[in-house]
Amino acid sequence: MYRFDGVFTPITTPFRASDGAFDDEAMRANVARWMATPLTGLVVLGSNGEAPQLDEDEADCVVSTVRACMPQDRPMLVGTGRESKRATIAATRRAAAAGADAVLVRTPSFFKAQMTGDVLERHYREVADAAPVPVLLYNVTMFTGVSLPADAVARLAEHPNIVGMKESGSDLAHMAECVTRTPDDFIVLAGSATTYFHALCAGCDGGVLALASLFPEVCVRLRALVKAGSIDEARQLQRRFTPIARSIGGTYGVAGLKAALDLTGFAGGPPRPPLRPATSTVVDVIRRQLEDLNT
Amino acid sequence: MYRFDGVFTPITTPFRASDGAFDDEAMRANVARWMATPLTGLVVLGSNGEAPQLDEDEADCVVSTVRACMPQDRPMLVGTGRESKRATIAATRRAAAAGADAVLVRTPSFFKAQMTGDVLERHYREVADAAPVPVLLYNVTMFTGVSLPADAVARLAEHPNIVGMKESGSDLAHMAECVTRTPDDFIVLAGSATTYFHALCAGCDGGVLALASLFPEVCVRLRALVKAGSIDEARQLQRRFTPIARSIGGTYGVAGLKAALDLTGFAGGPPRPPLRPATSTVVDVIRRQLEDLNT
Amino acid sequence: MYRFDGVFTPITTPFRASDGAFDDEAMRANVARWMATPLTGLVVLGSNGEAPQLDEDEADCVVSTVRACMPQDRPMLVGTGRESKRATIAATRRAAAAGADAVLVRTPSFFKAQMTGDVLERHYREVADAAPVPVLLYNVTMFTGVSLPADAVARLAEHPNIVGMKESGSDLAHMAECVTRTPDDFIVLAGSATTYFHALCAGCDGGVLALASLFPEVCVRLRALVKAGSIDEARQLQRRFTPIARSIGGTYGVAGLKAALDLTGFAGGPPRPPLRPATSTVVDVIRRQLEDLNT
Amino acid sequence: MYRFDGVFTPITTPFRASDGAFDDEAMRANVARWMATPLTGLVVLGSNGEAPQLDEDEADCVVSTVRACMPQDRPMLVGTGRESKRATIAATRRAAAAGADAVLVRTPSFFKAQMTGDVLERHYREVADAAPVPVLLYNVTMFTGVSLPADAVARLAEHPNIVGMKESGSDLAHMAECVTRTPDDFIVLAGSATTYFHALCAGCDGGVLALASLFPEVCVRLRALVKAGSIDEARQLQRRFTPIARSIGGTYGVAGLKAALDLTGFAGGPPRPPLRPATSTVVDVIRRQLEDLNT
Repeated sequence: MYRFDGVFTPITTPFRASDGAFDDEAMRANVARWMATPLTGLVVLGSNGEAPQLDEDEADCVVSTVRACMPQDRPMLVGTGRESKRATIAATRRAAAAGADAVLVRTPSFFKAQMTGDVLERHYREVADAAPVPVLLYNVTMFTGVSLPADAVARLAEHPNIVGMKESGSDLAHMAECVTRTPDDFIVLAGSATTYFHALCAGCDGGVLALASLFPEVCVRLRALVKAGSIDEARQLQRRFTPIARSIGGTYGVAGLKAALDLTGFAGGPPRPPLRPATSTVVDVIRRQLEDLNT
Repeated sequence: MYRFDGVFTPITTPFRASDGAFDDEAMRANVARWMATPLTGLVVLGSNGEAPQLDEDEADCVVSTVRACMPQDRPMLVGTGRESKRATIAATRRAAAAGADAVLVRTPSFFKAQMTGDVLERHYREVADAAPVPVLLYNVTMFTGVSLPADAVARLAEHPNIVGMKESGSDLAHMAECVTRTPDDFIVLAGSATTYFHALCAGCDGGVLALASLFPEVCVRLRALVKAGSIDEARQLQRRFTPIARSIGGTYGVAGLKAALDLTGFAGGPPRPPLRPATSTVVDVIRRQLEDLNT
Repeated sequence: MYRFDGVFTPITTPFRASDGAFDDEAMRANVARWMATPLTGLVVLGSNGEAPQLDEDEADCVVSTVRACMPQDRPMLVGTGRESKRATIAATRRAAAAGADAVLVRTPSFFKAQMTGDVLERHYREVADAAPVPVLLYNVTMFTGVSLPADAVARLAEHPNIVGMKESGSDLAHMAECVTRTPDDFIVLAGSATTYFHALCAGCDGGVLALASLFPEVCVRLRALVKAGSIDEARQLQRRFTPIARSIGGTYGVAGLKAALDLTGFAGGPPRPPLRPATSTVVDVIRRQLEDLNT
Repeated sequence: MYRFDGVFTPITTPFRASDGAFDDEAMRANVARWMATPLTGLVVLGSNGEAPQLDEDEADCVVSTVRACMPQDRPMLVGTGRESKRATIAATRRAAAAGADAVLVRTPSFFKAQMTGDVLERHYREVADAAPVPVLLYNVTMFTGVSLPADAVARLAEHPNIVGMKESGSDLAHMAECVTRTPDDFIVLAGSATTYFHALCAGCDGGVLALASLFPEVCVRLRALVKAGSIDEARQLQRRFTPIARSIGGTYGVAGLKAALDLTGFAGGPPRPPLRPATSTVVDVIRRQLEDLNT
């Protein structure tokens, strides 16, 4: 059985410049390169994968394409959260059939005021009951405007098919509560690379980090340093990578991450409109940040 | 050519209690009843229509079903906003083919930080260029966390295929700016029934109001009163209907509106999970509010 | 007995450029000029009076200075809200002794999370019990981060010594609730000039407006137009003055209002540090806005 | 010369139940007891000291009373932030004359929108220029609604008379930036006990913690554990004290801290109105939390 602790990266979805369609060749090249790193596994169709911008057919195609390039023993997590329970379960079943080892289910977000702790808890239970593979909760308030309370996390952690969560926020008190109020084998993964070190100190088991698409070894090493109690060295490492971590996925969004991929030999390419590619000014900022790290 | 000023209601999408599928019979019965009222027209697949919870196939089916029950001279507006430009355009074309007189395009919302005025402006231009029918902008910050600035509205109002907007917020200074900075034939429709009277005073041309599903005559009369300068009477009328306006669509969300429909002989039914039906306590509150209005 | 409906302006406190002390001569000149306008009365030591920046001694001196220049039949309202009940009552008594016709008591604001409706209600009751002159509630969330709920307003309106409120927010639904849930002789004054017209439509009895320091006749006329049901003309008038209304007190704060006073022959002068005077760019913007109004 | 790293507690100001005046005897008893602990020093007239609720005369009296009970080699920090620069400097001079070793200057907060990074930077420079003792910046957004940006902190840290800061927020990324962008001898103190462990991991030099009024040894030990790299043990200790840390100063405000002091043999007493004493339910919660820690 898989354990899902470790370092994952939420991979982007490359689109062809010509017609904006999913570029499966580019995806295969990227995945092959990530498979040569110490990354634990990949997250497909997360926010950085522009999941909300894909049709269901495209989404299925992305999942199959990635699975075909990943060895069976490297876990593939697939984002299958949708606004309705029925669509979430349907996407989960298709992902499982296509080889997902687990699914990452973001909170529904459109009807924010209605997404109380109770409603979210029931939603996750019903999805987990129906899911053929393990479920990880996914709280990403910066995109959803919805918060999954620690109380709900604590109760959901008792469900046999809910094995962990990704928390993308940077409220460390909340993250620490998620860690301390769930069993030891419930995996809490940090989603924000700018607070990755802090999340590891708080007891997180690893991360799902855009930064790990570019610097997988650094992200793996940071985790090892904290586990070994080398706090000062870990803090220094975090500090060095915080500026680029802030640029990709954060300040400049998916476009920033894709620009950084282009600059490092991956297939980044443009995001899907209305998202715009990084401006040349932004590309210059990111280039400089990458150069600073190589000196 | 249609003008889109007047009073619309954003109709709910009924689901069968048995299997949760779209209940087209119930929809037909509801539409028939609304067609016997002075409502200008209907908005299909808005937020109250639970659009984000429907598959694309279901959405198309809802549109065709409604159109078939509406006389050709009653305008049907269809919500076709999606997260990507390509999906928005595709949905717009399908809606137009199925008989939409115009489309209502909400701002994309997932990648909030990237949805700047410039990005939204370009998005709407490109959608309007490709749309076979007129486009209405749709700003609904309470659900999207995104704001369409008045500057962008003013510029977009010059596009020949962008004919109006629905503003669901209750910031009257913003609404007044949208009215005063756009040409007279650009339609500004209020989306919040609790501030409907105020929006009309501010110069709005009408509304897209959940309240109008229950009280179409009242909503039409309130508009006429303000046009006639009968401010005191209009204010009294608004005051009387504010409590129920707050309950349906607002405090209790779609579930509140559906409960009120059930209580007044329409087919309301349950919302789609994870949304929950109104609790019996909520139903009692709404029943009392309705009774108060009949005495 | 005074009635406090009508149009007030919250006067600024001029400081000497040389040493930053209260400039009583400048104040006298300003007040004399306002007394020659149709303003109902003046508000001394409001937010625009930089009340939080004054020592208690200075505050008392400002009050006496203004009273000495005002005829007895023109009401002077004095801001006496402090963080503690005892300081609020002490300031209220001193203001009354110095000739205040009523006091305007802002909500305490530092311990925001503790300022629940219940706590605020008890605070206002105890202050009103001890006040030798009538009390007006003062809700100014943009500065305090605290909101006085309409429920509390409705209950406080029954206190014999609480005669009205100033609501500085622009949430018209809230304002309408304050109007409709209080007796007819409870005065609700609008504090935001950018939504003054809308507030009057909503039933407000008048305003406490920075704009009225510069354009008292306009503010008085707008009120009369709405009372007479001339909505279109009133809306046009509001529209013309909205840009300058936004600049003074709003976007550019007290410094913007003081710059506008300097440009119109009043004694504006610098605000007290850390507040900075308007930059020359801002002064130019305001000058242009004022010129636009004269053409 | 003093160094201000270490563990401080922001002491409450006791009031007499009879007349609400400052209770200097109770203060002396409390201070004597704190002096028998390993606390580095005390913070007088912070938020927990109800500084905004005190008259200037009372404030001076509190400072003198505390100083008289503290040995000269134990640092006393005094909160002297006011809304105006002149009042802040005046309070700073009086505090220095009364024996403050340094002052803690909160950001002005009433005119929030005007408190930009530039304005705050100039304010702190001018205060520090005039201050006879070292200045610590004090950022407490939960009360002020104002944020001191890390950029401003970095520049202010170069001022010879600005020696450190207290950051009361729990945004660890921000805190880490304050640590890494300031010289090693610039002291960064954590103000939130619920994230104290995380702040220490992030490189903070200590804390100003309400929790330390009750558990000074625990707060000192937690700091030592992190310094020694005993992360797991430190995390356990934080976890144990997080519930009570959340109650006092946080959820239940000053009233909660005062109730906890009463329960542990200190003189807590009522806060000053409009603040209310802890209800009996809250007292019971706190009593249970304290008992849990003793078993």
